Amino acid sequence: MIPDACIAAAEDAAEAAGAVIRPLFRSALLVEAKGDASPVTRADKEAEEAIRALIAARFPDHGVIGEEHGADRPDAEWVWVVDPIDGTRAFVTGRPLFGSLIGLLHRGVPVLGIIDQPVTGERWIGVAGQPTRFRAPLGGVPACRPCARVGEAELSCTSPDMFLPADKPGFERLRGAARRVTWGGDCYSYGLLALGLVDIVVDATMKIWDWAALVPVIEGAGGRVTGWRGEALTMQADGRVLAVGDPALLPEAVSLLTER
Amino acid sequence: MIPDACIAAAEDAAEAAGAVIRPLFRSALLVEAKGDASPVTRADKEAEEAIRALIAARFPDHGVIGEEHGADRPDAEWVWVVDPIDGTRAFVTGRPLFGSLIGLLHRGVPVLGIIDQPVTGERWIGVAGQPTRFRAPLGGVPACRPCARVGEAELSCTSPDMFLPADKPGFERLRGAARRVTWGGDCYSYGLLALGLVDIVVDATMKIWDWAALVPVIEGAGGRVTGWRGEALTMQADGRVLAVGDPALLPEAVSLLTER
Repeated sequence: MIPDACIAAAEDAAEAAGAVIRPLFRSALLVEAKGDASPVTRADKEAEEAIRALIAARFPDHGVIGEEHGADRPDAEWVWVVDPIDGTRAFVTGRPLFGSLIGLLHRGVPVLGIIDQPVTGERWIGVAGQPTRFRAPLGGVPACRPCARVGEAELSCTSPDMFLPADKPGFERLRGAARRVTWGGDCYSYGLLALGLVDIVVDATMKIWDWAALVPVIEGAGGRVTGWRGEALTMQADGRVLAVGDPALLPEAVSLLTER
Repeated sequence: MIPDACIAAAEDAAEAAGAVIRPLFRSALLVEAKGDASPVTRADKEAEEAIRALIAARFPDHGVIGEEHGADRPDAEWVWVVDPIDGTRAFVTGRPLFGSLIGLLHRGVPVLGIIDQPVTGERWIGVAGQPTRFRAPLGGVPACRPCARVGEAELSCTSPDMFLPADKPGFERLRGAARRVTWGGDCYSYGLLALGLVDIVVDATMKIWDWAALVPVIEGAGGRVTGWRGEALTMQADGRVLAVGDPALLPEAVSLLTER
């Protein structure tokens, strides 16, 4: 059982991050900075500090791993894993498709996850053993859809430029077999998979803060998130992530990604 | 001078299209249809019919060119050019980055354009000779930003898969020279350029209903929209479209796209 206090803290942490991020979205500061990442890095750091302060005040013995400020007590029984702005390119270019990711691991297993879009107000809340909830100002229902074959699947991927050379052939096989591919999205694409609008999301070079929060959201909507070989994601994961809305897709997708 | 009645009609037409489109966004109908385009095609057709009915009632002697229902009186002095759902892939996968495009040509020159995002409520309104207006529930100001060199530019492109073989080398030269590229967006990317968040958008295989509405929006925000050789877009345009936020970027971008 996931304590209700943890779920409430995750939602409050998402609010705290959003309060830091929203004023910067499409702001004069970002317009003037152009390609320069520094205002985003500052927002990222400040939002992560707000999240960490909230968690430290409520659960002083929990661990925290974050993209900007590293790991505190990563061996604790409960470890929070946070990425305040997942989808930096979307954020910088004014697309409301980035998200704040707040996950909680219990003995290394993701048991709670939030994807929060602070500009549209959308929020996915996943808790192990419970149906995923979705705050839906733009519409949508948190349930993956049936899709038994890759040939019928809508595939999504953040960028064609994200794959290491060794990963490219597997990705190209999957892409070639899928019905269609759409580009862009980061965590938001996984949210769309949990709404039954996308069937497969595949990414590489993902850190634990990129995927930990996604697992309870997608599994609570009926889907699966694994590595490219279909293995469970752990703290030792290699960064290659595969999400399917219909678990029946998993063997075929794994086979396309890994065949020799 | 663009008659106020035309501007009011363009806004009313955007409302009429949105009323058809919004109920389908992320609907059970779309979730169940998966890759099948038929519900979208139906929404596209019905939204275009709503726009055409409104225009016919108010301006019976104007022409209309639309993606779904072809051309009526394309040689009229005033010709409306409409695409009810630009960005079908975004729409189908639940991303609020598609748009309704409503443009008006006077003797072949785009003089009025609307980009309407009916789910977020964002609307760009461009009128020749006037500053672009922007209804901004998610924030943003309609002004392109200075960016004098391609090496500093944020480039956006709908998909790496959209170019004909003959266009690929030019696109790859521009992409290689730009500071960064983000994928996805269709008309929304041009809207972001008009907010000073993107510096260059380049596309190919565009029809007149894909670009006519964009021209007044971007030019009223200080940018330029041309063909890949820097030429004005006309009804005979070849489908290759280049938009820059800072007109100073145009010669370098054209040179990269077209050099032999």
